Amino acid sequence: MNITILFGGSSFEHEISIVSAITMKKVLKKSNITYIFVSSDREFYLIDTNKINSKVFSSRDYKKSKKLTLKKGGFFVDSIFGSKLIESDVTLNLIHGRDGEDGKIASFMEFYSIPFISPRVEASVLSYNKLYTKFLAQSLGVKTVEYEYLNKDSKREISIDYPFIIKPVRLGSSIGVSIVKDKSELDYALDVAFEFDSEVIIEPFIEGVREFNQAGTYTNKWELSIIEEPHKEEFLDFEKKYMDFSRDSQLLSADIDDILKAKIEESFKRVYNTLFRGSIIRCDFFVVDGEVLLNEINPIPGSMANYLFEDFEAMVERLASNLPKEPNISIDYQFIHSIQGAKGKA
Amino acid sequence: MNITILFGGSSFEHEISIVSAITMKKVLKKSNITYIFVSSDREFYLIDTNKINSKVFSSRDYKKSKKLTLKKGGFFVDSIFGSKLIESDVTLNLIHGRDGEDGKIASFMEFYSIPFISPRVEASVLSYNKLYTKFLAQSLGVKTVEYEYLNKDSKREISIDYPFIIKPVRLGSSIGVSIVKDKSELDYALDVAFEFDSEVIIEPFIEGVREFNQAGTYTNKWELSIIEEPHKEEFLDFEKKYMDFSRDSQLLSADIDDILKAKIEESFKRVYNTLFRGSIIRCDFFVVDGEVLLNEINPIPGSMANYLFEDFEAMVERLASNLPKEPNISIDYQFIHSIQGAKGKA
Repeated sequence: MNITILFGGSSFEHEISIVSAITMKKVLKKSNITYIFVSSDREFYLIDTNKINSKVFSSRDYKKSKKLTLKKGGFFVDSIFGSKLIESDVTLNLIHGRDGEDGKIASFMEFYSIPFISPRVEASVLSYNKLYTKFLAQSLGVKTVEYEYLNKDSKREISIDYPFIIKPVRLGSSIGVSIVKDKSELDYALDVAFEFDSEVIIEPFIEGVREFNQAGTYTNKWELSIIEEPHKEEFLDFEKKYMDFSRDSQLLSADIDDILKAKIEESFKRVYNTLFRGSIIRCDFFVVDGEVLLNEINPIPGSMANYLFEDFEAMVERLASNLPKEPNISIDYQFIHSIQGAKGKA
Repeated sequence: MNITILFGGSSFEHEISIVSAITMKKVLKKSNITYIFVSSDREFYLIDTNKINSKVFSSRDYKKSKKLTLKKGGFFVDSIFGSKLIESDVTLNLIHGRDGEDGKIASFMEFYSIPFISPRVEASVLSYNKLYTKFLAQSLGVKTVEYEYLNKDSKREISIDYPFIIKPVRLGSSIGVSIVKDKSELDYALDVAFEFDSEVIIEPFIEGVREFNQAGTYTNKWELSIIEEPHKEEFLDFEKKYMDFSRDSQLLSADIDDILKAKIEESFKRVYNTLFRGSIIRCDFFVVDGEVLLNEINPIPGSMANYLFEDFEAMVERLASNLPKEPNISIDYQFIHSIQGAKGKA
C-alpha cells in the first residue's frame, strides 16, 4: 500500500505529531510511506522517508525539502516542467490538535477527492471541542462526567465542589489542564487554561476513578482494540508523554470482567457509529459505580493507538478499502434554465 | 474595497448561489468585485465581472475562463511565467449548502490566512446541520421547536402528532422538505428526504405560526437588520425562490411591538455571540404564545440578506476591518530538544 502520512500543523501538538509520524515507520513496515510535513507556517513539504528523524524538524532542515501544492486529487510537486502528482492510495491524517483534529485537513481531503483516514468534518468538530463532545454524547444516550462551561468573559463562578479539573475546550494531550484543589488555586488555573483557549470546561476530579481506553474502527466489520487501563498519574512529564506518542509494541488487556468489557465496547460503538466512519479513534472512559462514562474522544490518538491492535497495518489496509464516500451531487442547471425560460433573463 | 465573491460549489444549492452572486453586483456598487466560481467538479475559475450572468454557467461557458489555484495567501493564476496572486482585501463566501456552509471553505480560508466573511469552521458545522443547531440552541438557553431524529436505518416510528414537517438535516432552501398530513404520506416524504441526506429531523407543523427573520453581524458593534415577516406559503416555486435569492431592495419592517422586537434581537445576539464572529447570518424564528423559538440559522443567507439592511455595503466594509483573528501558535521545538537532550535520540 502507498500511504501518505500527513503530520505537523499549526498546533500546540505540532511536536508530538512529529513523534507520532516517526513511530509509524516502525509500525507500517510493509507499506510504502510518503511523509508530508505541514510546517508551523502551513507550507507542505515532502520529507524523504529515509531521512525522517526529529532533528530534521527541530533544526529546520525540512526547509530544504521540496514544497508541495495541494490540489484536486492530491499533493503536487511543481517544477518548471509542470506539476506532478505524488501517487498515493490513502492519506493518514496524523496532525494532532488544530488543523488535523478541527476539521481543516478533513475539509481539504474531501473537497479535493483524496482518500483519507481521519474523522470527517462534522466528526472532527464535535470531538475536537470538549463541550460539543458533551452535546454529542447526550444525543447518543452515552453518559459523561458532569461539567460546567466558562468563557474568557464569564464570571469565574463554579458550583462544582473542589477538587475539580479545568480543561481548555479545544486541546488534547493535557495541555493547559489543571487540577484545582481549592479556591486559592482557581484564578491561576483559569489564567493558564485561557492562555490556550477562550473557553474551558470544568469537571469534578474523581479521586481514584478507573480509566479505560478503547480504540477501534469500522472497516467492513467492527474492529475494536484491546481495552487498556492507562497508567494513572496526575501529570505526564515530557518523557512519559514522548513514550506515549512513540509506543509501537502491544500492551496487555486491562484486567476486567466480561460485563464491563461489553459495556465499554458498546459505548465505543455508539459514539463511533456512523459519524466516525473512515477514522480510527480512541475513546477514554471512566467507570464510576459500574457505570461507563465517556471522558474524551481522541479523534487522532497518539501514534494512532497502534499498540492496542494486534495487526494495525492490516487493519489500516482494510480501512483504506472501505472509506465512506461523499454523496455525489449532479448539477444540471435546470433551475437557471427555468428562470431563463420564464423571464427571458440572462 | 477589493472584494472576492466565491460562489457555486458542489452543492444542491449551486444554482441559487449563482443567483446570489449575480445579485451582489447590484448591491456592492462601490466595491471592486472579483468573481471566483467553484464548478460542480470543484475547480476554481476567475469569471470576468463584466461578463457575469447566469448563461455563462448554464451553457458551461465558464470553462473558457482562467483556472485558479488556492494556496497560502489567496487564489493564484498559474502561467508559464509563474504564479500570480489575485489581489483582494476580503473574500465573501457565498456558496450555499455543501462546501460553503459545511466548514470546507472556512477551513481553506483560515488555513491559508485569507481574510473572509462567513462563519468559521465550528459555527459552520453547528449551523449547517439542523440537529446540531438544536444542541447549540439548547446550550445557549435559546428555545427551539420540539423535534425527533431519524436516520436511514432507523425504524420509521414518529411520536409527534400529524401534521409534521420532515427536513433533511443538512440542506437549506426547502430542498427535500415535506409537510406530512397523515400516515399515508409518511413513507414517500421520508423517501424524498433520504434522497438528499441520510439523516432527517421531524418537527410539528404549527398551523398559522408567525415567522420572523432577523439578520445581523458584529463588526465593532452590533449591527442588526430590520425584522422581516416573510411571505408565508407552503412552498415556494422556482420563480419565487429565484426572487428570494435575487432581492436587492430594502423591505419594510415587520409590524410588531417593541417587546417582541427586543426578544427577537436578544435571541439573535445569543445565537451569534461569539461563535459567529466574522459572518453575516440570518436567524429564522417562530413566535408561539409570545415565546420566541429558533427555527433555523442561515449561515450564508440568500443574497446575504442584503435587503434587510440599510447600507449593506458599508457594513460589509466595517466587518472586513473587524474580522476575528485565529490565535497564533508559536512552535519552538522545545519538547523535541528536551527528548534529544534526555535520550540522545535523533
